[in-house]
Amino acid sequence: MEKRELLYEGKAKKVFKTDDENAYIVDYKDDATALNGLKKGTIHDKGIINNRVTNHLMKLLEKNGVPTHLIKELSDRETLVKKVTIVPLEVIVRNVAAGSLAKRLGLPEGTVLSKTVLEYCYKDDALGDPMVNEYHIMAMNFCTKEELDLIASYALKINEILTDYLKDVNISLIDFKLEFGKTADGTIVLADEISPDTCRFWDTVTHEKLDKDRFRRDMGGEEDAYKEILARLLGE
Amino acid sequence: MEKRELLYEGKAKKVFKTDDENAYIVDYKDDATALNGLKKGTIHDKGIINNRVTNHLMKLLEKNGVPTHLIKELSDRETLVKKVTIVPLEVIVRNVAAGSLAKRLGLPEGTVLSKTVLEYCYKDDALGDPMVNEYHIMAMNFCTKEELDLIASYALKINEILTDYLKDVNISLIDFKLEFGKTADGTIVLADEISPDTCRFWDTVTHEKLDKDRFRRDMGGEEDAYKEILARLLGE
Ligand SMILES: Nc1ncnc2c1ncn2[C@@H]1O[C@H](COP(=O)(O)OP(=O)(O)O)[C@@H](O)[C@H]1O
Ligand SMILES: Nc1ncnc2c1ncn2[C@@H]1O[C@H](COP(=O)(O)OP(=O)(O)O)[C@@H](O)[C@H]1O
Ligand SMILES: [Mg+2]
Ligand SMILES: [Mg+2]
Repeated sequence: MEKRELLYEGKAKKVFKTDDENAYIVDYKDDATALNGLKKGTIHDKGIINNRVTNHLMKLLEKNGVPTHLIKELSDRETLVKKVTIVPLEVIVRNVAAGSLAKRLGLPEGTVLSKTVLEYCYKDDALGDPMVNEYHIMAMNFCTKEELDLIASYALKINEILTDYLKDVNISLIDFKLEFGKTADGTIVLADEISPDTCRFWDTVTHEKLDKDRFRRDMGGEEDAYKEILARLLGE
Repeated sequence: MEKRELLYEGKAKKVFKTDDENAYIVDYKDDATALNGLKKGTIHDKGIINNRVTNHLMKLLEKNGVPTHLIKELSDRETLVKKVTIVPLEVIVRNVAAGSLAKRLGLPEGTVLSKTVLEYCYKDDALGDPMVNEYHIMAMNFCTKEELDLIASYALKINEILTDYLKDVNISLIDFKLEFGKTADGTIVLADEISPDTCRFWDTVTHEKLDKDRFRRDMGGEEDAYKEILARLLGE
């Protein structure tokens, strides 16, 4: 399967058409952005690591009953995926307060939440991806009630599967962002990526950050952190 | 019933203890604040109008099956109310996009929402009353799931009752903020106020603003707008 027309270039990936009208190729870049695009940089080999980690975790999720867009890894940076219409929501799952939630609620970063928190943000760069609730989603017709209920149940199931899996390699899953899409036949599947770009991973013992926060917060060591995640998950 | 110890002075009202341990007296001020307290001023006779309008609407709601904190109007500015523990949420009901929602979702002010929108903000001045969703509310233990479901159903019912009632005096109910509280025996009741401070009222025909937005946006005419609301609702 080969890349045809470039359909969309995002902040972290390019999406190409293929000869199969129901399949796209995603091509992972090393580009990193933060703070709504204000901070720009690159993280060496990030694209390779995120491609591998995403596919590894999506296979795990498929095996556990969560449908995903994954068809087949094609190369270091390229993966064949089902073409979907993205539901314009970032679905955020939180186990521990960090980042914007810690600030919003005045909780010290690291506070364990008494219950898992789901949040939805409307994917719109110009508006700064504003947080929305179920009523906004219904009023704006971002998806149907049934689709949203399914997305929420997948998000919580993914959280259980990943939390459990990562425990064995000493990684605490603090929070993460998911995107879902609708295939040609209307099925809701997990799309986009699951990587240190989109998850907060903390070493369970030392609480060392092994994710994009190292870049966002100018902490340094982001390349080593991404490599560490690859090593713990895929033994590479 | 007389005022005893001043319990709390808010931005728009004072709350006093009374000799009845289950009753407070609220005393409405003319003070007006906006933009998270950055803008300060007074609106002549606002306290009198808000006291009267609130009690008038709360009686209407009680008659239609919504329990409220109202016991008895004592004077122009003073009302005897049930002592409640306030659920620390501002419950916002929206029929038409305006204010922060119009900005958040990039909708022109005045866009009719295809469905009624409920929003919750955590009542915390220091944090700027941040928007929260049901998951945050549960994780933070602001109230129970059963209480939140009841609050949401009351909010929607109040919206229907008020929208219907205001139609007859040519007022469109654009959006409004509610606070609920728990009485000594655990009953959830509507508390606080319902007034041009807490509702967006637009003249149905001319779309003229008859509420606190005139003050917030330096439009002038706020005193006349408040008087007009009193006149249309109570014929005074
Ligand atoms: N299977 C898919 N089909 C169609 N679009 C997808 C699929 N998976 C991800 N996308 C979209 O590809 C785009 C590129 O990804 P990315 O670079 O992460 O974008 P962004 O800059 O929005 O974060 C995103 O808009 C994402 O929603
Ligand atoms: N029945 C009640 N019992 C106890 N507190 C109440 C009751 N009704 C309203 N309150 C509270 O009285 C306070 C004073 O009101 P207000 O001046 O509007 O305060 P704010 O500055 O928070 O807007 C608010 O904290 C409000 O929640
Ligand atoms: Mg992305
Ligand atoms: Mg108030």
